[in-house]
Amino acid sequence: MNEFELIARLTRSLPTNDSVVVGAGDDCAVLECGDPLRQLLLKTDAVVEGIHFTKETPPEKIGRKALARALSDIAAMGGTPNAGLVTIALPKTFSPEYIEKIYAGMNTLAAQHHVAIVGGETTTNPERVLISISLTGFVPRGRAVLRSGATAGDAIFVTGELGGSLAGKHLDFEPRLTEARWLAEQFPIHAMMDVSDGLAGDLPHLLRASGVGGELLKSAIPISRAAKENAKRGDAAKPAFVAALTDGEDFELVFTLASKKAVPVLDAWKKKFPDVKLSCIGRIIAGEGIRLRDKTGIRPFTAHGYVHFS
Amino acid sequence: MNEFELIARLTRSLPTNDSVVVGAGDDCAVLECGDPLRQLLLKTDAVVEGIHFTKETPPEKIGRKALARALSDIAAMGGTPNAGLVTIALPKTFSPEYIEKIYAGMNTLAAQHHVAIVGGETTTNPERVLISISLTGFVPRGRAVLRSGATAGDAIFVTGELGGSLAGKHLDFEPRLTEARWLAEQFPIHAMMDVSDGLAGDLPHLLRASGVGGELLKSAIPISRAAKENAKRGDAAKPAFVAALTDGEDFELVFTLASKKAVPVLDAWKKKFPDVKLSCIGRIIAGEGIRLRDKTGIRPFTAHGYVHFS
Repeated sequence: MNEFELIARLTRSLPTNDSVVVGAGDDCAVLECGDPLRQLLLKTDAVVEGIHFTKETPPEKIGRKALARALSDIAAMGGTPNAGLVTIALPKTFSPEYIEKIYAGMNTLAAQHHVAIVGGETTTNPERVLISISLTGFVPRGRAVLRSGATAGDAIFVTGELGGSLAGKHLDFEPRLTEARWLAEQFPIHAMMDVSDGLAGDLPHLLRASGVGGELLKSAIPISRAAKENAKRGDAAKPAFVAALTDGEDFELVFTLASKKAVPVLDAWKKKFPDVKLSCIGRIIAGEGIRLRDKTGIRPFTAHGYVHFS
Repeated sequence: MNEFELIARLTRSLPTNDSVVVGAGDDCAVLECGDPLRQLLLKTDAVVEGIHFTKETPPEKIGRKALARALSDIAAMGGTPNAGLVTIALPKTFSPEYIEKIYAGMNTLAAQHHVAIVGGETTTNPERVLISISLTGFVPRGRAVLRSGATAGDAIFVTGELGGSLAGKHLDFEPRLTEARWLAEQFPIHAMMDVSDGLAGDLPHLLRASGVGGELLKSAIPISRAAKENAKRGDAAKPAFVAALTDGEDFELVFTLASKKAVPVLDAWKKKFPDVKLSCIGRIIAGEGIRLRDKTGIRPFTAHGYVHFS
């Protein structure tokens, strides 16, 4: 059983109440909070030493990454982050300076996005550092962009470039908060999520939630320079194109909207965000799964994104 | 440096914003959420295998405890819990049945308190299971009961009985949500917190936050049967009275209110909650720290509650 099968089992019968607009299964939960104009977003995300960072990772970058990952999920709803709680579990031999540097990296990014850090705790995890961050955010009432709204005929877009994140981007990426809010305000986005486990791993979640399939145009996938350089580096490396779809930790946005809006969104994006790539990588089709189109034809795409426990 | 010294250093300069009513340092954070009648409570709490439970603990009880601890903090503000996020970090060799039982125990308690579980994640922690729970709750606007409101002359009360929690109570305790809401609605409670690290460890936080001291009457401390039985069991055990103040994991409430309300609150409590003890254990005094009064006189009390990392 992999991570997603386990989650599917666990989320089948979770307790709920009248405040829940969207429960488990999207990038964030959406809740009523008594505000006539806004709804509350909730997200939690953890990073673990040896998996998401190493003993050698500068602690400021660990703290930054821990928060940035959760911010990316708030972005994926078209939301604005508001407040965070931080749990750090660590060996008893911890150095206070190390923890202070983790906080320093996190606090700097939080302040940039006007996010308050309002509490948390330290506890013991004898063998390795683990950081869990919970975030609240707000979204205009009824305007949270879910994974479930994609429709056959939609164009599929992805921000930035994919693959090779381990070369550095996974510690330095900018959560696409500004871009996502702008998209949600300016265009009728049908579905959106952040790409954290590789497009090949994440896009199927959006497709399943929407009850549709996707056709990707191989030549349109934006491949990062890091993925291309890795691919040149000997036999062990994946082809750059596979790396772009499967490396994970991209923290870009994938979204869909009606195909007639494809050119307008590209034009407006280029003016608004000249330094961030936006690529139309394919279209939503009836059916299920991902198929890949290249000059030789169309075939099912079966590569996997990164899956915990698999 | 112990846990509390580290937290003091970390919380000195946390980023904040206009939504923050109470930040780090109380049982929960209090935030504006756009509701004209209510404010939002936020809390996160983690339990770790080998520290808060063992490999032998029934998994239903682990899940129950993980949630109950966070519920106890919502209670300590006089609040009503609303929604939770669950992070479970676990070895790759996990059994899905074990995780499902953790969720079953948690879900049962959540449903009892109308708490929705709206998301979370599973991640890898190779050596041991760690569960982090974040909770939201609501409190009537301006009515959150903080740690900082105690005044010289107040009577100090504690619910239930203290000590010996490891004999079973730490897995089975009822978070004092109903009692705390009733107290906050019916009486002008000056300060309140939950007792999780032992009264001797926790009461000083309330006293420091309020800028006052406390005088406890030794004979008034409610000692649990488990603590008394432990104390009889040979030389290694602590005296029952010290156990009651230092064992930890009581998850009772300590609160203060004007001394003229002491008899009314005791009378009303007995009618409302005949099965839960309420004890007036002392009074708030000018100064700082805890002093202990018994038939031999008054002396400073220096025993420590349970402190992580000490």
